[in-house]
Amino acid sequence: MSRLFPESVRRLLEELQKLPTIGPKSAQRLMLHLLAAPMEDARALSESIVALREKVIPCPVCGNLSEDGPCAICKDAIRDLTQICVVEEPIDLIAIERAHDFRGVYHVLGGRISPLDGILPEDLSVDKLIERILDPDSGVTEVILATNTDVEGDATAGYLADVLHERFPKLTVTRIATGLPIGGELDYADQVTLIKALQGRRKI
Amino acid sequence: MSRLFPESVRRLLEELQKLPTIGPKSAQRLMLHLLAAPMEDARALSESIVALREKVIPCPVCGNLSEDGPCAICKDAIRDLTQICVVEEPIDLIAIERAHDFRGVYHVLGGRISPLDGILPEDLSVDKLIERILDPDSGVTEVILATNTDVEGDATAGYLADVLHERFPKLTVTRIATGLPIGGELDYADQVTLIKALQGRRKI
Repeated sequence: MSRLFPESVRRLLEELQKLPTIGPKSAQRLMLHLLAAPMEDARALSESIVALREKVIPCPVCGNLSEDGPCAICKDAIRDLTQICVVEEPIDLIAIERAHDFRGVYHVLGGRISPLDGILPEDLSVDKLIERILDPDSGVTEVILATNTDVEGDATAGYLADVLHERFPKLTVTRIATGLPIGGELDYADQVTLIKALQGRRKI
Repeated sequence: MSRLFPESVRRLLEELQKLPTIGPKSAQRLMLHLLAAPMEDARALSESIVALREKVIPCPVCGNLSEDGPCAICKDAIRDLTQICVVEEPIDLIAIERAHDFRGVYHVLGGRISPLDGILPEDLSVDKLIERILDPDSGVTEVILATNTDVEGDATAGYLADVLHERFPKLTVTRIATGLPIGGELDYADQVTLIKALQGRRKI
């Protein structure tokens, strides 16, 4: 197939296919769109990719995406500094913000403990989290552990809970709930989710 | 949501969402990937978008994607010049090439007749197709009309058939077959496809 295309088309197709969820057919569709789109759109896309890499830095406070100094959430005077929600990656922060419910601040770990991938606790921004809790200005009262609910995410939450309980005996440390998703049918739920949903049952 | 992101992130998300099939969530996933990818990959993608626009031209013979002079198919000495397959856009040519069956050459019309969108026969490369058939060097014996099988594609094929029959009474003009797709179930087929499949029945 590929010898069908001129060199510049082939190169773009290759680069597009390095992106997640973009296979050969999607890459072709995107390429044909870029070929037909207004020149300024193609140029704007091209420039904004490089600008992203040149400008974006992790927020020095929480690790979220930022451009210079603290991120939009850390700068937001309305956010409740006493609640810190700990997530693995910026994408998780975005997911929680989409729900428009949480009004506290975040702490992005930059991953999760995964010895098989060579990621140990010291590779995550745990020290910085402890520093933030120690800071008397923020007066943190609760840390919500919102790492993913898979094996590594649970292990990371467990590790953090141990560390935090030991250092800050008065701090409330919580873990996001697991159970059936809203609108979920028991028949379709996997076994582990069902067990967790039963174990986590509450009086109503 | 968007005020969450720094300016450069917001700009990239906007540009990504102009692409077909990329919604807000896909754009975020692509952005995070580009942020984490090796810098040379991000730069290569950025550069290849501009290179595409600067280098790709329509093949002067058939209208397929090319960089300078005739495209890879028109330059291929093995292709059978006596059969021309007429398609609407380069994407259709790519689809036919993927099937690895057709060994003739192509003619890309650059669209289909659609008076409602202001596209008339003179906006398509019909004159160039006639020129190619007139060229004694190619000795064209058959023109396969492979425009899409929707209303405008059928109308375009009908128009071309009329023009070609009138100018070249000896030329074989064919239309790609319509009917049930292979592996198709009658129960799932739409009414029009079923009618066409019945009308197009053949002795076996």
